[in-house]
Amino acid sequence: MIDKLIRNIERTGAPIVVGLDPMLKYIPEHLQKRAFEEHGETLKGAAEAVWAFNKEIIDHVYDLIPAVKPQIAMYEQFGIEGLLVFQRTVEYCKEKGLIVIGDVKRGDIGSTSEAYAVGHLGRVQVGSKLCSGFDEDFITVNPYLGSDGVKPFIKVCQEEKKGIFVLVKTSNPSSGEFQDRIVRAGITAGAGREGAGGITTADRPLYEIVGEMVAEWGADCMGSSYSNVGAVVGATYPEQGKTLRKLMPKAFILVPGYGAQGGKGADLAHFFNEDGLGAIVNSSRGIIAAYKQEEYAKYGAEHFAEASRAAVLAMKEDIAGALAKR
Amino acid sequence: MIDKLIRNIERTGAPIVVGLDPMLKYIPEHLQKRAFEEHGETLKGAAEAVWAFNKEIIDHVYDLIPAVKPQIAMYEQFGIEGLLVFQRTVEYCKEKGLIVIGDVKRGDIGSTSEAYAVGHLGRVQVGSKLCSGFDEDFITVNPYLGSDGVKPFIKVCQEEKKGIFVLVKTSNPSSGEFQDRIVRAGITAGAGREGAGGITTADRPLYEIVGEMVAEWGADCMGSSYSNVGAVVGATYPEQGKTLRKLMPKAFILVPGYGAQGGKGADLAHFFNEDGLGAIVNSSRGIIAAYKQEEYAKYGAEHFAEASRAAVLAMKEDIAGALAKR
Repeated sequence: MIDKLIRNIERTGAPIVVGLDPMLKYIPEHLQKRAFEEHGETLKGAAEAVWAFNKEIIDHVYDLIPAVKPQIAMYEQFGIEGLLVFQRTVEYCKEKGLIVIGDVKRGDIGSTSEAYAVGHLGRVQVGSKLCSGFDEDFITVNPYLGSDGVKPFIKVCQEEKKGIFVLVKTSNPSSGEFQDRIVRAGITAGAGREGAGGITTADRPLYEIVGEMVAEWGADCMGSSYSNVGAVVGATYPEQGKTLRKLMPKAFILVPGYGAQGGKGADLAHFFNEDGLGAIVNSSRGIIAAYKQEEYAKYGAEHFAEASRAAVLAMKEDIAGALAKR
Repeated sequence: MIDKLIRNIERTGAPIVVGLDPMLKYIPEHLQKRAFEEHGETLKGAAEAVWAFNKEIIDHVYDLIPAVKPQIAMYEQFGIEGLLVFQRTVEYCKEKGLIVIGDVKRGDIGSTSEAYAVGHLGRVQVGSKLCSGFDEDFITVNPYLGSDGVKPFIKVCQEEKKGIFVLVKTSNPSSGEFQDRIVRAGITAGAGREGAGGITTADRPLYEIVGEMVAEWGADCMGSSYSNVGAVVGATYPEQGKTLRKLMPKAFILVPGYGAQGGKGADLAHFFNEDGLGAIVNSSRGIIAAYKQEEYAKYGAEHFAEASRAAVLAMKEDIAGALAKR
């Protein structure tokens, strides 16, 4: 799947992913009104407003971008009705030729991670049949439970030719609270116990250790030049991105935090490899709620999706400029 | 909600939670056959088999136990159909007077954690109305993203009188890979930056630092004697449980890993406080698939739920015995 993502990036010339994280407050009044008139102020009404919003944005930007990243929490908050629209969004984006990165941040102990993996990336055995649940192309995975919580996802990636992005250094302000802790070399509390990590060579932050594990996990799941096991590293931490880029040379980095969270094009250059590949930058609010920004206010709420298209074009230029300057 | 959980524990005399993690391989043939005849070998067929299985178990054990813990991955693997049965299971258990701990292990950056929190514990604003999605009583939360990923859950707990259990030291074999890393005192890579953790006083494993944060977060969300912010610590790590019990005196500990994963009653005593409270022990496979164990084989697959009832009674006795011996 990483090869297909790379082909899409090369075709569009845009290492960009649009985050479909549709909070109701981003959705123009007229779409909310129409959905509520039809379905009431209910979970179904909210979900249908989300769908109308998503569809119009997708229709206006799909030719410019390689991938989308729906954030499942924004659908799950509306219960089953929201998840039906998550599923419809995944299907519609795939029909449009987009790679779909389900931002689900799942992760659990072995057998449970396996259930998430088949539900989101693979097929589940039902009697003599194999059935698909959500069927994204990639998902994000939380590594806090260690290898035996991550490997079931990789197994399914191998079987189904799918991919994952493992959280390494997240974009939020307090990501350092645990991820930046300086870990002592050579020791874990469970040292000697099977699977407990083993020897490290120097004191360094936890995110580097997670990054090294991503490189190790990814070696078993290679595409032609990059691995199907990528990493999430926030645009808001460019220095850490530089280090992690070197620690995980074959991992694609999914970079959230551009735009609304504060990351800028100039911060991003170090996330890419010399080949101009190796990273894909996400913007959510900055694209889907562009019409609310002063810069794109001229489009008005009626033409919100045209504002999104303009914002994608501006982001593409910003990143291309930053890469040209290196 | 922690007060209600404690009342339920005191009423039943059983600090036990039954994990409703229904993999198809645990479900007796006759239930699968019936569901597949009606709905085909489809996601709906699988989900209906799960529902029939859950309902019969709940009907046979609800009077013995204070709480259940459905593992959402086992439902999510069957897509929307599975999640409909997750929702039906949550509702049914609540009707039966059980506390429902949604084992969802969610966690993300601030605004996204907020969406998960309202979707699982609270109510989401839709126009002028407030609507509930899944509406569990407690959920499990993954802390890897730090305070700003956890606090939105706590805010919703305060508003809705609900609770969470934060993953601290998980029960799986490789949980030590990151959680047991020895963290250097006094330093984080992001030290000085707001929200980046700050000074620690001695080198110690990461799980202790997470445990201290649980105690800190929990202080803002107290019930009458315990906090609504609890912790997950695996039965498979009794020594770590002993340390964490002291670090988080007001946190209820949800203890997975009993039974099928290897934890025994004798390992559990240290997870409890002197008052006999402070912990609730989960068993999933050991209860719901009891009929597959030699000990309960006499019940046969037809009477699987009676085997589950017998297994609950044995677990209750095992834990009471271990607590009496301290």
